[in-house]
Amino acid sequence: MPRTLCSALPAALRQPDPVTIEGWIHRRRQLASVTFVVLRDRSGLAQAVVTDPAVRQQVSELPEETVIRLTGTASRNAKAPGGVELVDPAVHALSAPAAASPFELWRPELGVTLPVALDHAALSWRHPTRRAVWQIAAASLTGFRRHLDGAGFTEVTTPKIVGQCAESGANVFALDYFGVPAYLAQSPQLYKQMLTGVFERVYEVGPVFRAEPHDTARHLAEYVSLDVEFGFVRDHRDILAQLRATLAAMLAAIAENASAAVETAGVRLPVVPEEIPVVHFREALELVGAAADEPDLAPEHERFLGAWAKRRYDSDFLAVEGYPAAKRPFYTHPQPDDPRWTNSFDLLFRGLELVTGGQRLHNHADYLAALAARGEDPAAYDAYLAAMRHGMPPHGGFAIGLERWVARLTEADNIRRAALFPRDRHRLQP
Amino acid sequence: MPRTLCSALPAALRQPDPVTIEGWIHRRRQLASVTFVVLRDRSGLAQAVVTDPAVRQQVSELPEETVIRLTGTASRNAKAPGGVELVDPAVHALSAPAAASPFELWRPELGVTLPVALDHAALSWRHPTRRAVWQIAAASLTGFRRHLDGAGFTEVTTPKIVGQCAESGANVFALDYFGVPAYLAQSPQLYKQMLTGVFERVYEVGPVFRAEPHDTARHLAEYVSLDVEFGFVRDHRDILAQLRATLAAMLAAIAENASAAVETAGVRLPVVPEEIPVVHFREALELVGAAADEPDLAPEHERFLGAWAKRRYDSDFLAVEGYPAAKRPFYTHPQPDDPRWTNSFDLLFRGLELVTGGQRLHNHADYLAALAARGEDPAAYDAYLAAMRHGMPPHGGFAIGLERWVARLTEADNIRRAALFPRDRHRLQP
Repeated sequence: MPRTLCSALPAALRQPDPVTIEGWIHRRRQLASVTFVVLRDRSGLAQAVVTDPAVRQQVSELPEETVIRLTGTASRNAKAPGGVELVDPAVHALSAPAAASPFELWRPELGVTLPVALDHAALSWRHPTRRAVWQIAAASLTGFRRHLDGAGFTEVTTPKIVGQCAESGANVFALDYFGVPAYLAQSPQLYKQMLTGVFERVYEVGPVFRAEPHDTARHLAEYVSLDVEFGFVRDHRDILAQLRATLAAMLAAIAENASAAVETAGVRLPVVPEEIPVVHFREALELVGAAADEPDLAPEHERFLGAWAKRRYDSDFLAVEGYPAAKRPFYTHPQPDDPRWTNSFDLLFRGLELVTGGQRLHNHADYLAALAARGEDPAAYDAYLAAMRHGMPPHGGFAIGLERWVARLTEADNIRRAALFPRDRHRLQP
Repeated sequence: MPRTLCSALPAALRQPDPVTIEGWIHRRRQLASVTFVVLRDRSGLAQAVVTDPAVRQQVSELPEETVIRLTGTASRNAKAPGGVELVDPAVHALSAPAAASPFELWRPELGVTLPVALDHAALSWRHPTRRAVWQIAAASLTGFRRHLDGAGFTEVTTPKIVGQCAESGANVFALDYFGVPAYLAQSPQLYKQMLTGVFERVYEVGPVFRAEPHDTARHLAEYVSLDVEFGFVRDHRDILAQLRATLAAMLAAIAENASAAVETAGVRLPVVPEEIPVVHFREALELVGAAADEPDLAPEHERFLGAWAKRRYDSDFLAVEGYPAAKRPFYTHPQPDDPRWTNSFDLLFRGLELVTGGQRLHNHADYLAALAARGEDPAAYDAYLAAMRHGMPPHGGFAIGLERWVARLTEADNIRRAALFPRDRHRLQP
């Protein structure tokens, strides 16, 4: 007999045949003359009512989280999930009886500390409120790719073991690669630029690695980066416009594919304005009352600007453009009318930096000058500089950290709540 | 003026306004009284004809691969790509003049050795025949995800830095993780199984790492694994059926999204039979004339079986099921009626192993027994075994190597031709 998903049980009311559902025993309540079983599958929950004494005895030996198959008759019950329950089912255990869980997954809230949830990640993610968080992440990925596929982008995959550090020598994991030193890629930056020379428009979803010395609520040692790069741009404003469209598509996919998860997780989905408000870094310093020669924005500055954008533009998003050249990587394109500033931006989402993006240099000579100005050896960038020497369009891009995006969207207190198996300074397990 | 893609130039014939195209100078032919410029953009090629002496002089200073903008009038010319050319364009250089390429990208064939193509990957991928190979890879990814999204799977991302080796201690890259030993994941196997306990059906597209001591035409040290795992299966035949549907969807997406690439690369797309023919490992040994106690199939056996399946079933695909338990990982589910064999399979594609899949154990006690039989310490698998202890459905899955799939599909002589920036024993650059 084909399996019916819990969410499809109401539709089964119309059929006379017995119905089979399969899943985990989410909750078992053994009353004086009846046993209720709430079953959990990938689609949601369904209730079954058992009155037969032999079956009640059988169920009494199957603790919560045991995987079972139930075959019975669908019947209306306004109090059951979906208004339907399965009556007098036959029960077939698909796993051995489950051991007692360290926390009760059927309670409305998981109710354990973060370290406990992380230590037992394979189990804590089963909780509907946790699962909803990842369903929002997965829908974000779907929206990200769907938009870019439709906009003429090509998905690429670039190596994570690299021969040189792309951005800086610090915070990098080193490994022995068949006897030569190698590193884990901190970003696909140089590769995505080279591939812009091939496909014009590329994106990659993949892991990046940062040997972060900090232990904060917003850093991970390994995270998923949503990288975009494309050519034939006028300047960084074209890149910001593409970022806006990408975020809007991610939110649309969440609303479309994960609406139940949004409700379960109690998420307020933001609206992306048609045009994201922009302030220049110089103005941002004035707004927050910082000295005009500050090279960067502090977290409290970002929070202030986030609140300001909400008041001023009713926007959860604010782009700060023109970051000082000294604080941006060597490949950053200067602001044409004043090279103290750059054609780069940070996107703040609810007062937290979410995305860094900008226009890159595209002429070989400009790269040589930029590396020389920083005292860097161009020989370390041979293949990359070769791409620039052989014709590259004006280009740029951005990178969104998946876990940071999801954490901020779900208003999690810690980015670790948005990673399936987070990695940090102290955590390598599970 | 908005940019027109090369492929859209024929449609521009109907408009009276000038047309702007942008891209790389693919080919420049300077004749006595006219200069032809073939422009290459992400969509294909377009020809422009320059007669104005000043513009011809300008173009003479822009070598092939220089990035330019051309604005002119679209005009019919049966000899031009798409039957249309751009007449008397204004030329605007978007990059500095490109340096001479180490190979001529405009020639119909790239015509360089594999090491040269790999050393200059950022440039050699610009060749239309190379680019087509990756477009087929990208379309494969689209089809893979589209099918699984439609079949109720959840995309997951799992850590690539792990605390223990999942499958064996050999061929693993080790690194220092904040002072403790860690490894690069050889597969997401244990994680995707744990997540089957959460989402029932999961997939992941991500890098895997093998410190392969061999230097062969079919191994890489880092490749992209398309991993699938799902629960509530009867046995491995359910997994093979899902694999069949996934491969069919990948081929459909290639036909749909990358038909021009298929033509450029001269690819014969296979048809996936409605039901993939299956032979048992025992029968396979008989067919190839090997001893009945052979524990594995040699490459020449696989080639023989591939040819046999083509003759017998007119199928490019053949599944060999029942591989001996001794040669399969500890988590492999035995064949219920004869535990010398397993509920696992290899899928051969044109006589080469493409996919390994099968049913896994799902009861905690079976895992303890399997690990004990191999003399392995269960403590190394704590979190994984915890998932099994707390209720796991009968489940299984498979993994497709992206580069191997694309190499076989395009009949490449070396898997390195299907990786954008391959990594092997001797290659860490670019």
